[in-house]
Amino acid sequence: MIKIVLNGCSGKMGKMITECANNFKGLEIIAGIDKYPSNASYPIFETVEDLNIDYDVLLDFSRSDALHALLELTEKNNKPLVICSTGFSKEDLDLIDEKSKSLKLFKTGNLSYGINLITSLLKKITPLLYGNYDIEIVEKHHNQKVDAPSGTAIMLADAVKESIKDTTKYVYGREGNSKREENEIGIHAVRGGSIIGDHEVIFAGTGEVIELTHKAISREVFAIGALKACEYMASRTKPGLYDMNDVIEL
Amino acid sequence: MIKIVLNGCSGKMGKMITECANNFKGLEIIAGIDKYPSNASYPIFETVEDLNIDYDVLLDFSRSDALHALLELTEKNNKPLVICSTGFSKEDLDLIDEKSKSLKLFKTGNLSYGINLITSLLKKITPLLYGNYDIEIVEKHHNQKVDAPSGTAIMLADAVKESIKDTTKYVYGREGNSKREENEIGIHAVRGGSIIGDHEVIFAGTGEVIELTHKAISREVFAIGALKACEYMASRTKPGLYDMNDVIEL
Amino acid sequence: MIKIVLNGCSGKMGKMITECANNFKGLEIIAGIDKYPSNASYPIFETVEDLNIDYDVLLDFSRSDALHALLELTEKNNKPLVICSTGFSKEDLDLIDEKSKSLKLFKTGNLSYGINLITSLLKKITPLLYGNYDIEIVEKHHNQKVDAPSGTAIMLADAVKESIKDTTKYVYGREGNSKREENEIGIHAVRGGSIIGDHEVIFAGTGEVIELTHKAISREVFAIGALKACEYMASRTKPGLYDMNDVIEL
Amino acid sequence: MIKIVLNGCSGKMGKMITECANNFKGLEIIAGIDKYPSNASYPIFETVEDLNIDYDVLLDFSRSDALHALLELTEKNNKPLVICSTGFSKEDLDLIDEKSKSLKLFKTGNLSYGINLITSLLKKITPLLYGNYDIEIVEKHHNQKVDAPSGTAIMLADAVKESIKDTTKYVYGREGNSKREENEIGIHAVRGGSIIGDHEVIFAGTGEVIELTHKAISREVFAIGALKACEYMASRTKPGLYDMNDVIEL
Repeated sequence: MIKIVLNGCSGKMGKMITECANNFKGLEIIAGIDKYPSNASYPIFETVEDLNIDYDVLLDFSRSDALHALLELTEKNNKPLVICSTGFSKEDLDLIDEKSKSLKLFKTGNLSYGINLITSLLKKITPLLYGNYDIEIVEKHHNQKVDAPSGTAIMLADAVKESIKDTTKYVYGREGNSKREENEIGIHAVRGGSIIGDHEVIFAGTGEVIELTHKAISREVFAIGALKACEYMASRTKPGLYDMNDVIEL
Repeated sequence: MIKIVLNGCSGKMGKMITECANNFKGLEIIAGIDKYPSNASYPIFETVEDLNIDYDVLLDFSRSDALHALLELTEKNNKPLVICSTGFSKEDLDLIDEKSKSLKLFKTGNLSYGINLITSLLKKITPLLYGNYDIEIVEKHHNQKVDAPSGTAIMLADAVKESIKDTTKYVYGREGNSKREENEIGIHAVRGGSIIGDHEVIFAGTGEVIELTHKAISREVFAIGALKACEYMASRTKPGLYDMNDVIEL
Repeated sequence: MIKIVLNGCSGKMGKMITECANNFKGLEIIAGIDKYPSNASYPIFETVEDLNIDYDVLLDFSRSDALHALLELTEKNNKPLVICSTGFSKEDLDLIDEKSKSLKLFKTGNLSYGINLITSLLKKITPLLYGNYDIEIVEKHHNQKVDAPSGTAIMLADAVKESIKDTTKYVYGREGNSKREENEIGIHAVRGGSIIGDHEVIFAGTGEVIELTHKAISREVFAIGALKACEYMASRTKPGLYDMNDVIEL
Repeated sequence: MIKIVLNGCSGKMGKMITECANNFKGLEIIAGIDKYPSNASYPIFETVEDLNIDYDVLLDFSRSDALHALLELTEKNNKPLVICSTGFSKEDLDLIDEKSKSLKLFKTGNLSYGINLITSLLKKITPLLYGNYDIEIVEKHHNQKVDAPSGTAIMLADAVKESIKDTTKYVYGREGNSKREENEIGIHAVRGGSIIGDHEVIFAGTGEVIELTHKAISREVFAIGALKACEYMASRTKPGLYDMNDVIEL
């Protein structure tokens, strides 16, 4: 049984992780860290410094300003740290990079296991299909999303592009006289209502279409990704900066 | 039994209509007109002028230059004419308009029954949904299509726009900082492989998404639309210029 | 501005309705009724009997045992009552029926506006398509759902069946030698993960497929349906038992 | 340039292959074999025995009774034989098996590159996902299809089942009280209109859904699969019985 300490246990994601952990075989949250209380069944320490128990993995779902304290604790205990907070500065990111030479750290662009699985699959199949199949991406998100296309859509497109080392260019829409050129990847950002996040990668060939699709249903998917990452990190033996792509071992 | 004469019976579409007519209850092709022979079971006249038998509807799937002869025949027999040829000049179109004051003529933008049905539905439901649901259109076509978005996608978007008499504006893609404005209709043109033609109209609201989708599988759908039009025109009693929207009586 | 009183305002759905009402033009929750407190901005009365202010619509999202008190209040004030609680006994349902002769009551099978809209559309288009198009329904729900197919799928299939007054029979799967008969409606229940609820009605014809699809994203959709019902009921002038189908005036 | 001889060059599939070969880089049809003429640009021999030119791969898209002559020619020339005819007897299949000890033979269940690619992907990802994701398959075909589910759906389900070596059981529909059991794979056969063939494999997890989808647009996809097989077989150095799964080298 992998023993996890959860930093940020009383926040929205903290509570969701706590709930998901109950149904996740082989791991257990043995303590939380948060300045706010919650009705969790495990003990809660107020600060990172207060933590005085043994654990296997430290999971962080709080705020970027906890980074220094977390890295110190990780250094002291020599246990893996799974970083799921966001909003890090350039200096923070450099520090994570530097510390990963001696510590087992995990940090990722997208916590969804499914999205990362699809990213891995794209790297496998794009070299087989490219040239005979046209690749297009359609993503759908709620109407309050500010950026387009989504970071995840870009991540998927980049996985395609890298695996063909090509003059691939991204096209974000088509209007008027605009016949598709062979090296285009069309990336289409649909916006509407409260859609949580759908991504569809289309390989359209002669006489057939192959699609890899991901639909996010709830934030639970990020909780589960974080727990998968903990499971994976618990068995690392070497320091390094791991990400969700390492977890998917195709 | 409605008796149809098919002008252009030996062409690709002519043959397909002939085949479809065999499975279409209540009508029969009793003769064809074409300068080329075919192995049809009905007699074939070489020119429109040669035709010397009674019929209920004259169906034209040939070329625009047959128009004058067809209109003369229609005038003489006072029977409906279903025009499915394309490529008419401005003068031709004006002539059709003019002649429709005294003749029963049919001419349409899109022969697919399904697309026209969806167009009708959009006019019904848009006023009910607009304001609470964001409307977006995704269309998919083969990689040789020159124009984007498809004429059909525009036809669908126009049906939405007309039914809300609004400051609606069409957006043909999103990139960068581009939060959706309420009066936008996103129209996304996916291009790839040999996709025949898919159209998806999305109404994305709070907590739910409604979609009306049309997928073309083969050109047969246009043959069937033409036969539906013949069936409809056979029972018209007044002159006029009818189109596929009239056939769909919601 | 329509003034609403919300019975059951401190429950999960009560809170969601309160939130949705803030973004819903033309109506306002002016008071709640609940024995538990909540941090709502409106006054909360502990029991139905305590309520002593004017309102336009009484919205109930509590439990079936509140029915008698709610009907009495409705009788006294002669204002519409929107009943969204569930679990009523046969006697309760008979009482609602009886009282609807003199009161303006609302009660529905499915609160989702979208599902009810699609039900209405099915009644319109089925008579046009039946015979030339095969109708099939695919629904997807989470793996804990006990019954199959979903009540909503049955509601959709019934709308199809009623509108063709036919010998239509429902088929819940196909295996082995099982060529489709013309009067079948295939209803397919996919179960997996935490899917909230998708319904797809397919009209498959020669050369084309038309699909009407509904995807539930969150329970908010039921909150919005309830508010739509309040809006509709506020302008009723005659007593009767109304449902969500009345709200959709196609 | 791989030189191909096409047996059955004047049939429907033969003509389609000829057309596809024109757009397929790196291979060329240098001769055909058929008792019927066609307007192909290559010479046509009337029988297999008549063929007297050098080639790299012999592609067969004719009838099962050509098998003996084809195997003799293959033996004589020691070149690969790609068998795409169907309807072989038990004896024929045994003979193919036997001959593959000394000859380079290709024979497959499904010629579509896409379907075989998805089959390969399923073998990769099922072990990663099984247990946390529920797997269901939805397939859609025209209303004249006699068997259900499709052979391809079974092939996909078998790929899932084999890769988990489990007590997996197939369920072909759900009705009534039928909560999903963990070891079920639901396989749903939708039938309607003229749908050519869609297959959707669903992995539904907590908070997310991953889908692998294949849509057949035309028979061209089989022509291309056959040419892919020729390309692959041209570079084989050892005898054996190869199939489409070998062509997909993930």
